[in-house]
Amino acid sequence: MREVAVVGVGMTQFGMSEKTQIEMFSEAAMDAITESNIEPRDIQALFLGNGLGDFEEGQMNLAPMCAADIGMSNVPATRFEGACASATVAMRNAYLWVASGFYDIVLVGGTEKAMAMGTPMATRTFAMGSDSRYEGFAGITFPGAFGMAVHLYSKKYGIPLQKLKEQMAMVAVKNHKNGVLNPKAQFRKEITVEKVLSGIVIADPLQLLDCCPFSDGAAALVFASVDKAKELTKKPIYIAGVGQGSAGPLYTQKDFTRIKARETAVKQSYMQAGVGPKDIDVCELHDCFTIAEILATEGLGFFEFGKGSQAVEEGKTSLNGEIPINPSGGLKAKGHPIGATGAAQAYEIVKQLREECGERQVKGAKIGMIDTLGGDLATVCNMIFRR
Amino acid sequence: MREVAVVGVGMTQFGMSEKTQIEMFSEAAMDAITESNIEPRDIQALFLGNGLGDFEEGQMNLAPMCAADIGMSNVPATRFEGACASATVAMRNAYLWVASGFYDIVLVGGTEKAMAMGTPMATRTFAMGSDSRYEGFAGITFPGAFGMAVHLYSKKYGIPLQKLKEQMAMVAVKNHKNGVLNPKAQFRKEITVEKVLSGIVIADPLQLLDCCPFSDGAAALVFASVDKAKELTKKPIYIAGVGQGSAGPLYTQKDFTRIKARETAVKQSYMQAGVGPKDIDVCELHDCFTIAEILATEGLGFFEFGKGSQAVEEGKTSLNGEIPINPSGGLKAKGHPIGATGAAQAYEIVKQLREECGERQVKGAKIGMIDTLGGDLATVCNMIFRR
Repeated sequence: MREVAVVGVGMTQFGMSEKTQIEMFSEAAMDAITESNIEPRDIQALFLGNGLGDFEEGQMNLAPMCAADIGMSNVPATRFEGACASATVAMRNAYLWVASGFYDIVLVGGTEKAMAMGTPMATRTFAMGSDSRYEGFAGITFPGAFGMAVHLYSKKYGIPLQKLKEQMAMVAVKNHKNGVLNPKAQFRKEITVEKVLSGIVIADPLQLLDCCPFSDGAAALVFASVDKAKELTKKPIYIAGVGQGSAGPLYTQKDFTRIKARETAVKQSYMQAGVGPKDIDVCELHDCFTIAEILATEGLGFFEFGKGSQAVEEGKTSLNGEIPINPSGGLKAKGHPIGATGAAQAYEIVKQLREECGERQVKGAKIGMIDTLGGDLATVCNMIFRR
Repeated sequence: MREVAVVGVGMTQFGMSEKTQIEMFSEAAMDAITESNIEPRDIQALFLGNGLGDFEEGQMNLAPMCAADIGMSNVPATRFEGACASATVAMRNAYLWVASGFYDIVLVGGTEKAMAMGTPMATRTFAMGSDSRYEGFAGITFPGAFGMAVHLYSKKYGIPLQKLKEQMAMVAVKNHKNGVLNPKAQFRKEITVEKVLSGIVIADPLQLLDCCPFSDGAAALVFASVDKAKELTKKPIYIAGVGQGSAGPLYTQKDFTRIKARETAVKQSYMQAGVGPKDIDVCELHDCFTIAEILATEGLGFFEFGKGSQAVEEGKTSLNGEIPINPSGGLKAKGHPIGATGAAQAYEIVKQLREECGERQVKGAKIGMIDTLGGDLATVCNMIFRR
């Protein structure tokens, strides 16, 4: 296996877009291609993440359409779907095609138009990511599942619910604060703990501002073999490790304050990269709900199990904390275009490791990580990047 | 890159099923696993093809659910969607994960429940595989696209339409004849040229029996590294070459009697396998419509462009012809469960190369090929297998 590096990145503004999924992807991809000092004809394959383009725009088999739209017809173009982790799964596969020596330069990313159908319908539609036989049928949605996780976490670790809700609110406050510093973020407005705690209840005890939005958006990256990367850019960012894990429906999971798919995935990522949680300088992770960020910081090993909510309160995950989490604003403030999210996380980490993040720059970041969750804790995929 | 072999295969009966997509996949997978002399815990990853499980059963993120259902939770489980070519795309990726040395034993396959919504609704729903911005919007469906291809073929090669329709009918007659010999086929009844030509018109000039059915079904294969394969089975079937190509929407394609995505893909497959069309002893290819089989036999190089329809008439593609095409009955008679089709093609070729096909056995077949088409000629993926 040879080393693989990111040589260019691109990302649309997140939020509501008038463009189609294909057009949004083209915008992000052309930025990534331009930054890579290549042309579309230099690219040997496309790896695309997308969640529900068929429901959103009546478009199945999206990958060849995206490839054609940027003038790279005929190359293998493949769509990956792992619910919200779609783009990260696509990136892990793209990594292997280059690492194995099969391709030298590939394009990877994701796109999604999740906003137009409106939040209530999107919530019901994306609930198809949970098991349809027993759980979806019984009415479970993602806010419902993560609401249960809050109660379980509170009980398991003896943290009073009101206390936990305040700590969760601090996740939202932090991520909105970071989002203000990100010109591509959907929400660029600070909020307060009081505001979070006075929001309408979505799925008890989750309130409105505990939840990320559904967004439109796309992000893209160009991966190249180490030799090509050195020719193309002065700032290659290397992929040091990749991991992916799965789990069955929620009813088969013993304890969903511990996300087995993540613990499986991250073991692979750390082992391949030869690093541990203490070595990670910056991390973009899956804060679809505030509790999800807390669970992820524990699952990735940054904090002991049961100590994640306290760590937020102590500022350990802030921009200047010991392990800055979601400097981009995360799904919470930057926005969450399902199938594009993983690629947007990678966009941020690459920018951080190149020290191109301006006011939200994590100083001296050398090793960064992304972690993306799909479905009812069913798919987790993560990647470690280094300068 | 090391050699990769198929060590076990499984497939459900095709047709109408009372099982869910997950349950059908489990049935096929457990047969493949049993035949491989392994247990689910020996499998390191799952690669799954599926077209529109979300529309059919409200199930997104299908791969981890399938993995969990057969007791292989936690391993990376990934869904691939390339319309009707979904499973072949999944197999091509699975191949690389083993060939590169990353995994030793993986499970791959596809599943689809395309029949329950009924043919009219399925036709409209699967039309999402065409470009949604201009073509789907204008009402194009797959029968419509292939109906146009018939007219183009007739004009381009100066074959009178009535003559061409008779030759197309011979494709249907041949595939139904083969289907009678396949216990897992959906249609096991011979038909005649007269019967095809008296069928209702679906999309001029395609008539009912020019079209394959929508089916329920699943198929699965276990891939292993060459060393593992030799331990596990006395009849390993090696993957000699893989290829994938794409194309944009129909309106960007100059001549769709020549499928550019296929020509791109098959060049890769032949080059990697070090063989040419003359070396292929048996082929399962994408006869979604009778004209599609004719176009595929030309695109794969078995016959000159414009000579494919005549070749059928001359019996060259029959079970005892110079290049037997679709001995399983093909999509036409065996059935077409969209996301499972490529895996079912591979199932047949593996069985043929092992000489386990009874009355439909192609005698002495040593090298076999599959070719799968997805969307409006937008994705083609093919693979070459050898004893």
